[in-house]
Formats: sequence, structure tokens, C-alpha cells
Amino acid sequence: MTVPPSGRTRLRRLPEKAAADLASLHAVLDAARVAHVAFVHDGHPVNVPVACAREGDRLLLHGSTGSRLFRTLADGAAVCATVTLLDGMVLARSAFESSMHYRSAMVFGVATVVEDKEAALRAMSEAWMPGRWETLRAPRAKELAATLVLTLPLDEWSVKISDGDPDDPPEDLDEPVWAGVLPIVSSYGEARPAPDLRGDPPLPAYVASWTP
Amino acid sequence: MTVPPSGRTRLRRLPEKAAADLASLHAVLDAARVAHVAFVHDGHPVNVPVACAREGDRLLLHGSTGSRLFRTLADGAAVCATVTLLDGMVLARSAFESSMHYRSAMVFGVATVVEDKEAALRAMSEAWMPGRWETLRAPRAKELAATLVLTLPLDEWSVKISDGDPDDPPEDLDEPVWAGVLPIVSSYGEARPAPDLRGDPPLPAYVASWTP
Repeated sequence: MTVPPSGRTRLRRLPEKAAADLASLHAVLDAARVAHVAFVHDGHPVNVPVACAREGDRLLLHGSTGSRLFRTLADGAAVCATVTLLDGMVLARSAFESSMHYRSAMVFGVATVVEDKEAALRAMSEAWMPGRWETLRAPRAKELAATLVLTLPLDEWSVKISDGDPDDPPEDLDEPVWAGVLPIVSSYGEARPAPDLRGDPPLPAYVASWTP
Repeated sequence: MTVPPSGRTRLRRLPEKAAADLASLHAVLDAARVAHVAFVHDGHPVNVPVACAREGDRLLLHGSTGSRLFRTLADGAAVCATVTLLDGMVLARSAFESSMHYRSAMVFGVATVVEDKEAALRAMSEAWMPGRWETLRAPRAKELAATLVLTLPLDEWSVKISDGDPDDPPEDLDEPVWAGVLPIVSSYGEARPAPDLRGDPPLPAYVASWTP
């Protein structure tokens, strides 16, 4: 399934890096934990990191009823939510051709408040920490009351992926320097138990399958 | 050195996570390679990932003279450049208290065009790939002409750092689940030489000291 680019989602720079399929969009969003959500406040741009998770054809954004950002968004402000994953450094023969590997998705739209907060929170928990939700106590009413979940439809978006080798021009290929890609690898380090952990519960087995 | 928060940089949510010293701002920006730069275009927010590096009391942003974003910014648009580094997952006894470790910096201002492009490009290269610049040929005039470097002063900003243990209320401490922090660790993986690499140059020794 592809979405024709609109005026603002058509990539002007490096259009060969554009991905137009929904699967690419989903994959980029699924690999992210945080979206940068930009909106206009008093005519000025504001850009806030927000915990996010994709569920189906929408992006869930996690916040608080006490947050000015979230109240502004819930009031129908237009947003541009952007997710970027940095995957490596591209060492070309010249500084000019040196670049980075990345996956980036940009979603334009208006967020709305999710009515079924508990289902949305569960979906986000499963996206970030699969398997953990069912081991936790149920949310309390006051906790749900303090939480605001927004949803942004995946209607207008663009995806850009840079994952190639250095693209040096022929006249640079004899430069006497190493060229190639240094991939960035992210993983979870050693788990650090809470200082007030009681009863010595083991690290859950499901953690072993998690990737950041 | 501290900067008194202005109306829009005072943290309303979780103010205990605010850092007001310039050293914290510098440390967060220095750990980042990409800033999300938001600006207003035709009344709507646009939010674009841009390669960035701090140099002294300014943030350098790397772009192209062919980029609409960069031409808009060079024309004096107000921006909000936000950098976020995700450092771990905080597994609390409840979903409500579960959170993430992060370092985030937000810089408001107007970007201007850097006149001495070569010096700025060198500073960015040294920030991202220390030691490499002097091994590369000098930039060509046409390369410099195609490059636009913008600078954003570090005058109005906020920093937020979340690095604590789970903060469960007393009534949850006997929940029979593991709680603690899973740190996220980023490193460079195995270098992948360019397919068209000639003469078998070794991977430079300076790469060993790099961190992503």
C-alpha cells in the first residue's frame, strides 16, 4: 500500500531515499520509543519529546493531564511528529560525501484524545516492554485519571531511509583513506535492580527478548 | 553558570528533572548527532531531523543550499531544536510509574548562516568523527558552495534529565515483580568497508576511540 505524497510530504532533498510504503512507515515507528512532537504555540514552534508507540494505523502518544503540551494537543493543534533512528556513520573519502545512516518518519495531523485509556496504555506497554503488562497490578482509577493518551492518525506522512555505502565520485576513489560504514548497535546493558526491591524476585525471562 | 528559565523554558512537568547549568546543556548536545528542528511553515509545524554539533556557545546545523528547510531557516524563521537521548527503560511495580531514562535539550532561537563554512564543517567533523578531517582531502569550492551551515545560539534553552530508580509508592513495594532499570547501551558495531574500497587501507586507529 502506498500513499501519494502530498505537497508537504514530498521529499525535496534526496528523494531517492524516500520510502512510500506503509510497511516502511510502520517499521520505523515500531523501532522508536520517542517521537519529537512539534506544534505552534503563540506563533512559535515548540518541539517536545514524547513517548510513542504505533498501534495499527495510529501513533499513540503518552502524556499527562497536567501537561500544557498535552492539553494544547488535545485542543486540536496541528502537529508534526517526527521519529529518527540513527543507525551508523558513513565514512566517505571526502567530508562532503560523509553522512549518516538513519531511518526517519514524519507524521502530520491533529491528535485526538483516546477514550479507552487502559487499552491504549496496555498497547504502549506491550510495544515497549512486551510481556510485562500482565505481570503488573491493574491501573488504579486515579492513575488513569492523571494520564492522557493521544492518538495521531497515520494519514499524512513521509519516510526517509539512508542505509547505503559511501557514494564517492570516481575522482575520489583513489584517495588513500579507509571508507565504509560504522554501524551503530543499541542493546540493553546489565539490568540494575531497584535499591528498594523486596523479596528477591528474578529478572523476568521476557526481558531477554527485548531490544531497545 | 546558570540561566534563569524564561516563560517557555521553565519546565512545568516534572520540574525536579530540570538541569539549569550550561555544563549539562553542553553534555547533552555533545552526545547528540541529530537535532529535531521545528519551525512554522504557512502556519503549520514542520519538524525535521538535522545533523548537529555543538561548538562553544552555539549549535551548528548541517544542511544544503538546495534544502527548503535550510533556506527557510536562513531567512530568519524561529526554531525549536530538540535533542533527546534515550538511556534506558525504568521498570516500576506498576505501569503508571514505569518510565524511561533520557537526556533532552530544547533550544529556542533564530538560526543564522555561518560565513566560514570550512571551519564549521571541520568542527562538525571533529565532533562526529574525531581525527578524520585531517586525513581527508580539502573540500572543493563547489562542495562548499552546495553546503549551508546554520548556527543557533545557546541563549534560550532547557534541559531535562531522567536517570533515577523506579519511584513506586510505599503501597506498591510488595508487588511480586522485579523492578529496576534496563540501561540502553549504544556502540559501534563491526566496520563494513566500502565495496569499492581500493588499495586495502586499514581501518584508522582513531575509530577505536569513537562512541556513537
